[in-house]
Amino acid sequence: MPDPHPLAELWRGDLRESVHVGHAVICGPDGEVLDAWGDPEAVIYPRSSCKMIQALPLVESGAADAFGLSEAQLALACASHEGAALHADAVGAWLGDLGLGEDDLLCGPEPPRDKALKFSLIREHAAPGQVHNNCSGKHAGFLTLAKHLGAGPDYVAPDHPVQQRVRAAFEDLTGVPSPGYGFDGCSAPNFATTMHGLARAMARFATADETDARDRAMRRLTCAMIDHPLLVAGEGRACTELMEATGTVAIKTGAEGVFVAILPDKGIGLAVKAADGARRAAECAVAALLIRLGVLDPDHAATRKRWNAPVRNRRAAEVGMLRPAPGFG
Amino acid sequence: MPDPHPLAELWRGDLRESVHVGHAVICGPDGEVLDAWGDPEAVIYPRSSCKMIQALPLVESGAADAFGLSEAQLALACASHEGAALHADAVGAWLGDLGLGEDDLLCGPEPPRDKALKFSLIREHAAPGQVHNNCSGKHAGFLTLAKHLGAGPDYVAPDHPVQQRVRAAFEDLTGVPSPGYGFDGCSAPNFATTMHGLARAMARFATADETDARDRAMRRLTCAMIDHPLLVAGEGRACTELMEATGTVAIKTGAEGVFVAILPDKGIGLAVKAADGARRAAECAVAALLIRLGVLDPDHAATRKRWNAPVRNRRAAEVGMLRPAPGFG
Repeated sequence: MPDPHPLAELWRGDLRESVHVGHAVICGPDGEVLDAWGDPEAVIYPRSSCKMIQALPLVESGAADAFGLSEAQLALACASHEGAALHADAVGAWLGDLGLGEDDLLCGPEPPRDKALKFSLIREHAAPGQVHNNCSGKHAGFLTLAKHLGAGPDYVAPDHPVQQRVRAAFEDLTGVPSPGYGFDGCSAPNFATTMHGLARAMARFATADETDARDRAMRRLTCAMIDHPLLVAGEGRACTELMEATGTVAIKTGAEGVFVAILPDKGIGLAVKAADGARRAAECAVAALLIRLGVLDPDHAATRKRWNAPVRNRRAAEVGMLRPAPGFG
Repeated sequence: MPDPHPLAELWRGDLRESVHVGHAVICGPDGEVLDAWGDPEAVIYPRSSCKMIQALPLVESGAADAFGLSEAQLALACASHEGAALHADAVGAWLGDLGLGEDDLLCGPEPPRDKALKFSLIREHAAPGQVHNNCSGKHAGFLTLAKHLGAGPDYVAPDHPVQQRVRAAFEDLTGVPSPGYGFDGCSAPNFATTMHGLARAMARFATADETDARDRAMRRLTCAMIDHPLLVAGEGRACTELMEATGTVAIKTGAEGVFVAILPDKGIGLAVKAADGARRAAECAVAALLIRLGVLDPDHAATRKRWNAPVRNRRAAEVGMLRPAPGFG
């Protein structure tokens, strides 16, 4: 099996200080590999990068329509949001509409990454809640589907009807049986697949049409992400800023250095995994691939924060650069 | 040249989710390589791991004694502290003793990593200062030496007498000319060397005796670190907790995945660099080497936070483990 390929490098002075290796796959409309770096058969956890797959049963089952979910709520179901008031309030209201409350979530509490809300909680001596967890929208989606199915409250158990539907959708879209699952930071099972499988699933989203319920659900989720970049992550974050910069691409990160992108205009899907789990490497790498595919402007401010990005000292002087590795992107 | 060697792995469920590669060298009393993983000739920036070398001219020049510096102040000169009140107040008083103030520092401001002080600044709507910068003790040491030498205020310029003396000491202890420097986050030049060079320098510290001013200065700095683990980093941090757990070893981290250790009882020095710059990998790897050398208890709580360390979800359940890679440590 091929070794991981260098993805990104940190330079300081005339020396390459650190280097990140990993895997990347670009799939065309039929799921075929158009380009690959590293090992397309490497098995990974997609982590939060597959939230649009985890939200698929919510939509295709009719649960989303039965509960009158808005496009913004579908974007939140696919989000790793930064727990700003914007996100937390929307999830709180959604739970209220279901006749549920924050205690019904099983994601656990997480301090908001949004600076304004984080500082405000500290000043009020208030503890962060489960609605601030970056996965709370996904969990509200799980609860909506569980209620629609009349299933029990432990919706993160791997044998719960919600997770069984997630697994079935996941294996259908990736095109390979999942070799197993681990538990994510939010307690939900996260199914493993190959790099090729994850990129193939994204190409399926990119080519979804109106032929059946699954395809229509995929189109709705992709559109929801592209139409609501701020809900999918938050101010200053990579998914939000890169989606705003492209305008036509759904982009999603996952913990431990994963990124995916769905390019509906080209029928293309892609996946990146930094083998060491580094977020900075995955952000640089996904930007490099989006530039390669002609959908991201290399001179855009959102690009330059992550790709050929200056590294600054504590007095804001440029002392280094994060850039794609030679032969990548 | 040998490839980087796997150092640490993150497991989730039955799958290795992420892996960190890098270099590690253990040197004996004569600077000879006792054990090595990866490439001993790999050129790296030691970053803050070499602060005891950067503090050497301060002591061996007589500046430390001329200004009556305490052992605690020498520990602060070697520190990457978390900016707790303990550290910031001591650096502020030190600057006052020199007839200087916080504005004479050139390290730049940095939010304290100490939670109590960080929260207190947020509640007071106060901006962090330069004394909170993790390198402020090193910079107070540079200012002390500059004053002793009657040199100018731009003590981080590579041609300043302070940095010239640092470079000379660095090249003497590492045993090889430095191929160049980059600027650190605190604006000071950071001289590059090989992994073997950095480990050899630590073995020099470990074997220092009373024969000359340089050796005596090295002994004083090593003892200062071992006697004041809380000043070298802070509550809950790896350097502090691992030094407390060993009791006899000086241990120091540097940004971008560097760790060094000085074992005076064994005349041994070692260096670790995670090639991707990951702190978690370097912490796991240095713990593995200290266990191998018989100076760290594998069952100590400080060890188990970093080596075979549980990874927990947001509800505190164990969902994975960070452990040394097979064949390492």
